[in-house]
Amino acid sequence: MQFDLIKGNAVIGQSGGPTAVINQSLVGVVNALRGADAITGILGARNGVRGMIEERFVDLAAVSPETLERVAITPSAALGSSRDKPDKAYCEQIFEVFERNNVRYFFYIGGNDSSDTCRIINELSDDVGYELRCFHIPKTIDNDLVCNDHTPGYPSAARFVAKAFMGDNLDNASLPGIKIDIVMGRHAGFLTAAAALARQHEGDGPHLIYCPERAFDPTKFVADIDRMYTEHGRCLVAVSEGIANAEGESIAAMMASSAEKDAHGNVQLSGSGALGDFLANLVKIELTPKGGNPPRVRADTFGYLQRCFPDASDVDQAEARAAGAKAAEVAMSGDKDGSIAIERVSSEPYKSEMKLIKLTDVAAKTKHMPEEFISECGTDVTDAFIEYAKPLVGELPMVAML
Amino acid sequence: MQFDLIKGNAVIGQSGGPTAVINQSLVGVVNALRGADAITGILGARNGVRGMIEERFVDLAAVSPETLERVAITPSAALGSSRDKPDKAYCEQIFEVFERNNVRYFFYIGGNDSSDTCRIINELSDDVGYELRCFHIPKTIDNDLVCNDHTPGYPSAARFVAKAFMGDNLDNASLPGIKIDIVMGRHAGFLTAAAALARQHEGDGPHLIYCPERAFDPTKFVADIDRMYTEHGRCLVAVSEGIANAEGESIAAMMASSAEKDAHGNVQLSGSGALGDFLANLVKIELTPKGGNPPRVRADTFGYLQRCFPDASDVDQAEARAAGAKAAEVAMSGDKDGSIAIERVSSEPYKSEMKLIKLTDVAAKTKHMPEEFISECGTDVTDAFIEYAKPLVGELPMVAML
Repeated sequence: MQFDLIKGNAVIGQSGGPTAVINQSLVGVVNALRGADAITGILGARNGVRGMIEERFVDLAAVSPETLERVAITPSAALGSSRDKPDKAYCEQIFEVFERNNVRYFFYIGGNDSSDTCRIINELSDDVGYELRCFHIPKTIDNDLVCNDHTPGYPSAARFVAKAFMGDNLDNASLPGIKIDIVMGRHAGFLTAAAALARQHEGDGPHLIYCPERAFDPTKFVADIDRMYTEHGRCLVAVSEGIANAEGESIAAMMASSAEKDAHGNVQLSGSGALGDFLANLVKIELTPKGGNPPRVRADTFGYLQRCFPDASDVDQAEARAAGAKAAEVAMSGDKDGSIAIERVSSEPYKSEMKLIKLTDVAAKTKHMPEEFISECGTDVTDAFIEYAKPLVGELPMVAML
Repeated sequence: MQFDLIKGNAVIGQSGGPTAVINQSLVGVVNALRGADAITGILGARNGVRGMIEERFVDLAAVSPETLERVAITPSAALGSSRDKPDKAYCEQIFEVFERNNVRYFFYIGGNDSSDTCRIINELSDDVGYELRCFHIPKTIDNDLVCNDHTPGYPSAARFVAKAFMGDNLDNASLPGIKIDIVMGRHAGFLTAAAALARQHEGDGPHLIYCPERAFDPTKFVADIDRMYTEHGRCLVAVSEGIANAEGESIAAMMASSAEKDAHGNVQLSGSGALGDFLANLVKIELTPKGGNPPRVRADTFGYLQRCFPDASDVDQAEARAAGAKAAEVAMSGDKDGSIAIERVSSEPYKSEMKLIKLTDVAAKTKHMPEEFISECGTDVTDAFIEYAKPLVGELPMVAML
């Protein structure tokens, strides 16, 4: 098929919370665009949309392949990221810059907020009749994008959570007590559920898993822990930072003394130990026998380590790269816009493919843990989840106790 | 030289906070005792001294070499650990058990509290004329044992801290703000100082490092951060959980709503985000311009992940094993008691040796960061520290930004 591509510059941006593999996607786009006839220049926007309106660009075509490969395996956003949520006026400023710089190809790597940003810019370009090809490349450790089997960034974060729980389970076994670990994930429990991958032997923790998909009841929480503590002589608990009560109110937000919100209206959940400390204190008070000593209760909040720890999953690295490359390839094949999604082709051996979906199919939507991943009791995951997550995180150490 | 060793059972125990390599020391002792004429049995005490008085022993001679090797590379204490601090009455109970079981060789793997336990038991055995050979094998991520270049457990914890700061520095660079990370270490700043190993490029964080060896002044803390934030447009800070004011009062203990103490009289510092949250809030309040928006300030408390994350340093694994083996060897060579210490023989290439020192030389003493490891400003480490710590943690990933 013959087609003509408009000649112009490409702009690539990275958005939202960084991940261990977002730079793989960046390098995937750059390498696939290199040498394409339609591409007159490859510009990296500093700090996402913010760098676009401020015209802060990096000439990515000038970066050596060696440096790019080093960047690819580096966690976090090498171009810098942004939490700005562009409104129409903001987008108009971006167009001014794009027009002035003859930008015709726009690749935005980010989560569901970012795919919506991409959608708005795309629609605005249609409205004003400016030929701009917009592609969203998925990224989020929360794994909450619809139409994706999973998202780049999730496998590496899940790997960290699994290894952290593996170590913490061993720690808890050697000095028994009640241990509560708070895991990232604002709306979806996928990352918290990954704690279950730590289990290798009978009785291993986590013994309880609380995802935001189930209403959180403090009274039941204490009773659950009491039961497991009695059964195992210890209790390791995974709790999502996003847990909310039956009314949908976030427990962490209720706890936080100052409910700081970002431009997307999201309350700050991470970067604070408040939720963990609140839950540990609650358990300590409720489970202290009359006139007796309180049980040993501790809480850790894994925090930002989950998204940038330098130990990415191999599958994640390869898929993030492939997602970036796919976006560039469809753009160079004449597609006008869309979002790249990961489709699982087979589980054993694990194999995935990249497909192009509509921006409107993914933008601003949130995927939750499917029902079949959460066990009936509501405080554990199913075998179906383990089968889903296991091939993503890569090999985990095998451990043994006496 | 001819000598006669009394025939009897050996007891091995693990004590205090677990580490990523304490099981290497356990396996080092077991393997070196196997087949020795004087050893009639090798017993592992469950949960340290607690298992000794309760006569809960594991027959370690019966464990297969394959399982032992799997145990060796498993973080945490495979026998279980204990925080009990035996007094004289407690020790007498231990002797009763030892006599009844003809225990003649006692190996205790632990920190400075545990070396003191070992010393007390040793002296009591002299007092009552019971022939018991007592050996302490060093272990602590705090690295605060005197007479040791460093202690088994520290290199792996330092490796985790270095990698965590590497990831967090990249995260902080891509979404600039003020980030405070709380690192373990009750009295000594060695582990907090390891954050400096994360730096690879000009401007990399941590930009400030607060060790317990320097009095902590909240006003100066805020001013330091303000200065670095202005200079770098961001600021990554490493703070020891053990920081104390000029009067020696622990800041974390002052913050903790309930100052829970263990049997050693130590206040609980870890397993709570209170210190990090307090410092983040302080910085946010103090650095918010009049009528302006607060800066982005976050805090993470690394918590228990630091001691059991399954990614031990190779040097640490080998040394922990060698320390256990050395203790068994000196016991089988006729030495009566003592503690094993690591001596650095050369730095390039790195090489260490195990030596036998007196129990009284190490027991209940605390090593602090030497003056030459802390920079003049008091908020950074020197090149001498980097040279000291670098060979211990093993290879770290090389990263690159654009």
